[in-house]
Amino acid sequence: MVKQILEKIKPQHLFATCRNPSGAKELNDLASQYGNLHVIELDLGNEDKYTEVVDKVDAMTGGEGLNVLINNSGIYGDKGVSSIFNLDKKQLQEHFDVNTFAPVFLTKAFVPLLEKASSKGGSAPNGIGRAVVMNISTKMASITDNTSGGAFCYRSSKTALNMLTKCMSFDLKAKGIVTVLMHPGWVRTDMGGPNGLLSTDESANGILNVLENIGEDDNGKFLQFDGQQIAW
Amino acid sequence: MVKQILEKIKPQHLFATCRNPSGAKELNDLASQYGNLHVIELDLGNEDKYTEVVDKVDAMTGGEGLNVLINNSGIYGDKGVSSIFNLDKKQLQEHFDVNTFAPVFLTKAFVPLLEKASSKGGSAPNGIGRAVVMNISTKMASITDNTSGGAFCYRSSKTALNMLTKCMSFDLKAKGIVTVLMHPGWVRTDMGGPNGLLSTDESANGILNVLENIGEDDNGKFLQFDGQQIAW
Repeated sequence: MVKQILEKIKPQHLFATCRNPSGAKELNDLASQYGNLHVIELDLGNEDKYTEVVDKVDAMTGGEGLNVLINNSGIYGDKGVSSIFNLDKKQLQEHFDVNTFAPVFLTKAFVPLLEKASSKGGSAPNGIGRAVVMNISTKMASITDNTSGGAFCYRSSKTALNMLTKCMSFDLKAKGIVTVLMHPGWVRTDMGGPNGLLSTDESANGILNVLENIGEDDNGKFLQFDGQQIAW
Repeated sequence: MVKQILEKIKPQHLFATCRNPSGAKELNDLASQYGNLHVIELDLGNEDKYTEVVDKVDAMTGGEGLNVLINNSGIYGDKGVSSIFNLDKKQLQEHFDVNTFAPVFLTKAFVPLLEKASSKGGSAPNGIGRAVVMNISTKMASITDNTSGGAFCYRSSKTALNMLTKCMSFDLKAKGIVTVLMHPGWVRTDMGGPNGLLSTDESANGILNVLENIGEDDNGKFLQFDGQQIAW
């Protein structure tokens, strides 16, 4: 995703956060190639650090604000939890911390910078020319689409993210910020495994096509990598 | 609800839990009138006590099991949280503890008694003649129906309950247990306030009509007090 944003969208600045920058070889290689890519340390579990990251971004953008926030963090630790019979409360809570609460409160922290970017958008229509929040969700969070059960922690934590994102979309719209949910497809990543239906390139390409064309009408919608809308 | 269950369904035993039995005047008055009503102390926040309650019910029913579990607990503490801008993490987590995790883990604890009741149902079709779990949700948890935002904590914690209930419905079906979600309507209770559209009698009456007619086809559905299905 970072690679394609650099190549296709060519932003003035791109901030990529990760838990352990010194171990993020691919990101660091890209950063040495692209001067506009900045790698920032952030463990989303440390909510106390959010303000620090926001301040860094604010300083590095010279107060111009942030046009796009993509919340892509997520864990899928359900491999041992196949049913209500072995559901574990600690594991469930951990999924809500990472998949639900972290993206919501990071977004809350970035609202001032998003609002600033939107207000500086001149005559641009609502969208990435102003400000967009894209929360990465999953089709597995669709209750309509849940015809087999299982994956309690992953599914329910992302369903809660869907509702919270829908809720915030009304508040952010009033600030000129468009908020969407994105299902990236079943991708051949570490999380998706080798049987995924899409390569990372295909998924990232789809997501960025959708992102570039987001408008006010998309606010609060649950879209997938090819632009189709997903049922709640 | 307790009153109408006693009058309409006339169960052999009815167990009503509450945090503070000594202060539950109405329940105690009913219990002195109806020998089949048993008031049991339970704070759903104390997960350690669940097994104790299950054991009590098991002993008092002489090992016959439990036919119906209604998870009715809930908090609505959103009155001060109207937007993403003042959303508080502690408050959000508290809603998930009470509205989401408590009913799920209490159900998990009661599965053995529900399964026992179902297996003793003879030729009865799936439903209250065997075993039913009814989780009280709310139309405010419908993302489809969310056209105004607000009430972040209440909405999202109940939406997560919807997904977790949908997930468990597949597992419990295999044990002869039907699982449903119920929107009680906007009721004139302490929580609903004086402007609610239904009296407690009307709501309870509707819910019990639905409960008595629940069949296998209702498994995993989100129903409201008049039997209509609600969109996710």
